[in-house]
Amino acid sequence: MPNTTDVTVAAIGERGLIDRIRVRIGPTPAWITAGVGEDAAVIEPERGALDVLTTDSLIEDVHFRRAWTAPDAIGAKAVAVNFSDLAAMGAAPRVVLLSLGLPPSLPLADFDELVGGVVRAAHAERAVLVGGNLARSPGPLIVDVTAVGSVRRRRVLRRSTGRPGDELYVTGTVGAAAAGLAMLEAGVDRQALDDRGRACLDRYERPLARLRLGRAIAANHAATAAIDLSDGLAEAVRQLASASGTGAVVDAGAVPVDPGAGEWSARGGQDPIVTALAGGEDYELLFAVPARRRRAFLASVSRAGGVPCTRIGRLTAETGAWLERNGGREPLPAGFAHYRK
Amino acid sequence: MPNTTDVTVAAIGERGLIDRIRVRIGPTPAWITAGVGEDAAVIEPERGALDVLTTDSLIEDVHFRRAWTAPDAIGAKAVAVNFSDLAAMGAAPRVVLLSLGLPPSLPLADFDELVGGVVRAAHAERAVLVGGNLARSPGPLIVDVTAVGSVRRRRVLRRSTGRPGDELYVTGTVGAAAAGLAMLEAGVDRQALDDRGRACLDRYERPLARLRLGRAIAANHAATAAIDLSDGLAEAVRQLASASGTGAVVDAGAVPVDPGAGEWSARGGQDPIVTALAGGEDYELLFAVPARRRRAFLASVSRAGGVPCTRIGRLTAETGAWLERNGGREPLPAGFAHYRK
Repeated sequence: MPNTTDVTVAAIGERGLIDRIRVRIGPTPAWITAGVGEDAAVIEPERGALDVLTTDSLIEDVHFRRAWTAPDAIGAKAVAVNFSDLAAMGAAPRVVLLSLGLPPSLPLADFDELVGGVVRAAHAERAVLVGGNLARSPGPLIVDVTAVGSVRRRRVLRRSTGRPGDELYVTGTVGAAAAGLAMLEAGVDRQALDDRGRACLDRYERPLARLRLGRAIAANHAATAAIDLSDGLAEAVRQLASASGTGAVVDAGAVPVDPGAGEWSARGGQDPIVTALAGGEDYELLFAVPARRRRAFLASVSRAGGVPCTRIGRLTAETGAWLERNGGREPLPAGFAHYRK
Repeated sequence: MPNTTDVTVAAIGERGLIDRIRVRIGPTPAWITAGVGEDAAVIEPERGALDVLTTDSLIEDVHFRRAWTAPDAIGAKAVAVNFSDLAAMGAAPRVVLLSLGLPPSLPLADFDELVGGVVRAAHAERAVLVGGNLARSPGPLIVDVTAVGSVRRRRVLRRSTGRPGDELYVTGTVGAAAAGLAMLEAGVDRQALDDRGRACLDRYERPLARLRLGRAIAANHAATAAIDLSDGLAEAVRQLASASGTGAVVDAGAVPVDPGAGEWSARGGQDPIVTALAGGEDYELLFAVPARRRRAFLASVSRAGGVPCTRIGRLTAETGAWLERNGGREPLPAGFAHYRK
């Protein structure tokens, strides 16, 4: 093999690059009838289940900078953002397709690391990279992933089926990924960060989808609706409410602002709650839970491995999305939705 | 609705753009459990069939130029190149996902036309656009399509299962798309082209996948292997032979050079056969057919609507890919494979 630090992808060519992907995938399970190297992948559907399909892309200088983030993290994140969509539907991932737009000058070592990140992120959830496409890009590095999962018919979670009176629960903490991005933009020294700061960077660069929890809630029929937080908590609340034909109220005091994000906001003179509500890319899940299912919901959450889950508000019959604090209400902050900047 | 000729996609925002996609899709069949607007699409697998998955992208200034090609043709071609991969596997398309990278300055009218092209190309083959992703692009317009089809297990066609002695058949004519691209690069006046020249432009800009023929051959078990001609006939022969562990010989005199492409090559002082063999993007199909299945193969071809199909050579036990002419042999010309330029 050539020395991958001096060699670019242009020097290797499409066939050679496909071979490098293939060795990284290794042997595939028997339900994959055709994989990388054929015109299309052929897989056996999961018996008795529905197919769940999603696609999401990371584009250089919009979603990541190569100067900031290691190639394997870029690859892994491209998988995680898709798996987060599957988690929000209650689905389990099975296969991923990888469509790359490659600047000819991309170092081969970066290509290898990126593919490695994709393969490992898929394997970590027992999914397999089965196909894709390589194209030349005249500008940005483009990483487009399609993920296919499965879910039983009666377990499909949607964003559009919430009902007035449902309580809203969010997993984990919010604002961390946006704070991590802000730290990178501010040029912080990684070595100088404390644990809380590093946790924000990690959340931005290496998010993990809440797959186990999504499946547990779906299996237990413990929520009426769910959505992931790709565009931030405020936007998720707004979209879930709007798709369900309801309004929503969020209790400012209940929002689980990530500690590192809160410190970062406060240091910059920003309102930590508003910043955390508006910040995107946390890839947590938001659930709508009827009050009578609260106990079952919390039992599922606890069985799914102790992911913290916080009640932050409720769906309302009156439309509109509001933030309650200090006894008053203000409009929920705007989200992060400008094409998922 | 705003006047779409003056408005850009940046002025509309993600939610507004998704709404514009939704109205273009219209009502969807009952086997689609969740579609555009949810975190992921949910579909019922085809009973008794396997899922076939493929993804392929068109990137501005690599695969198309906006100055040359109408947005609806770009959208339709992004679907057709994926359907061609399904055709090569013997599969029928069911759904497509559309992942767009949008320059903020893209006129809304172009966005609408592009989406219209995607939706119409899918509908024409009874497939449905069920989901996707919108991202901002810092440079090129990026159109990434994932297509999902179905095929019965015993009917899957592959590129890797050809055998020495199999005869090679190609559909339609070759070289037309490459000639069409060369005409655009040379700045020809569309109005001044004759019918043969216009046919080359059409093939480049508005290819159609050979879905019906692929399915017919697969159903009749009339071929041992198949591949589509995205990277040209020479490259397809080389890849099918290489994946099958065989060699191949192509008879130069038998290659069905497209008449318009032949005229264009001859005018430029090029060898029409070599140019046609090397030219990419014809999206015809190449089949390996055992001599004893020849009659069944030709019967399937004729029942599939009279697509011309030409015997151009054979697979050999000895590896290597050769072009025979004038009683001698020369290496098969290089293909078009530099990341599908």
